[in-house]
Amino acid sequence: MEYPSKLIENAVLEISRLPGIGKKTAFRLVMHLLRTEESASVSLSDAIIKLRTETRYCNNCGMVSEDVLCKYCSSAKRDHSLICLVEDIPDVIAIENTAQFQGVYHILGGLISPVNGIGPDDLRIQELFDRIESKKNTVKEVILALSPTMEGDTTAFYLNKKLSEKGIEVSTIARGVPLGGELEYADELTLGRSIVTRTKYD
Amino acid sequence: MEYPSKLIENAVLEISRLPGIGKKTAFRLVMHLLRTEESASVSLSDAIIKLRTETRYCNNCGMVSEDVLCKYCSSAKRDHSLICLVEDIPDVIAIENTAQFQGVYHILGGLISPVNGIGPDDLRIQELFDRIESKKNTVKEVILALSPTMEGDTTAFYLNKKLSEKGIEVSTIARGVPLGGELEYADELTLGRSIVTRTKYD
Ligand SMILES: [Zn+2]
Ligand SMILES: [Zn+2]
Repeated sequence: MEYPSKLIENAVLEISRLPGIGKKTAFRLVMHLLRTEESASVSLSDAIIKLRTETRYCNNCGMVSEDVLCKYCSSAKRDHSLICLVEDIPDVIAIENTAQFQGVYHILGGLISPVNGIGPDDLRIQELFDRIESKKNTVKEVILALSPTMEGDTTAFYLNKKLSEKGIEVSTIARGVPLGGELEYADELTLGRSIVTRTKYD
Repeated sequence: MEYPSKLIENAVLEISRLPGIGKKTAFRLVMHLLRTEESASVSLSDAIIKLRTETRYCNNCGMVSEDVLCKYCSSAKRDHSLICLVEDIPDVIAIENTAQFQGVYHILGGLISPVNGIGPDDLRIQELFDRIESKKNTVKEVILALSPTMEGDTTAFYLNKKLSEKGIEVSTIARGVPLGGELEYADELTLGRSIVTRTKYD
């Protein structure tokens, strides 16, 4: 594809780096931006740069946050003895949308994957242990809300072993979520039910 | 949907303003940006703002340009007696990609559409007449390369009348392009052929 200017070529290149957006789609978006008022491009550009440079993460759970502690960790209404362990931020949002969970979260930032060279030290696992330690026996239960994939199962196996050694009760969300699927795509009803009917991890 | 922070909510909102991108897709893109290195978001944001604030247009034909005149208008290799009239920038790129046209372009910036309240004065039609005037009889032919839609036909009818009065030969690209379709989506072979086999406008 021949581009009429360097500015357009560069914008198409940058936009097409986003997942699921090819060069043709990127070019259509560029044309759209050129046709609409300048303020639209300014707002978009501004939102993207602020998102990445100003977003903060909760010191406690790793969730996106406006402050040092996220709204869940800083809430007196949540049950801080119950930690729901998830892979990433979208999982928290998916679980919150079910309105079935009143505990707090801990974000791993990934799953153990020997194939991809991701081990326990690459995830926020030590942070979880430190957090439980600092709470001095007030954390009673950790719910493993991980994707029912091989990586999810490997991670759950590892964490159950480590957490059980520390005397923490470990449960896992009920396998109502379709096997082999990504957790964040599960429908709200299935996901909410799977939290309510969670079973002891074994 | 509940968003974990104002920054994320704002980024989702701005990205979902783009055509064909819903809130779910926008949220996935936001998550992607948060996961990738900061330089990726900086480059993307920068490319978008520069695209809209620094893009220039050719004084002669209205095409996107790096300079006062675009690369077609400033080229000695192009036939300046032959002007291809198009609706918008993507049409020029589509025609250039066929490698079948060696003349120059003129961008209308739209099509006459009484339904949408767009008349000849809202388009770059006077600029076309001024351009032909200033070239003192060196412009021999105008090819109407407009979408074969009702608006395209209305615009072609109007322009043929006006240009014929000025003694300009008017042709139209052959109707090899599928009726009712948008010009910029025509495949290169069909579009290239339709330029070569263009017919006198009547
Ligand atoms: Zn938190
Ligand atoms: Zn030009």
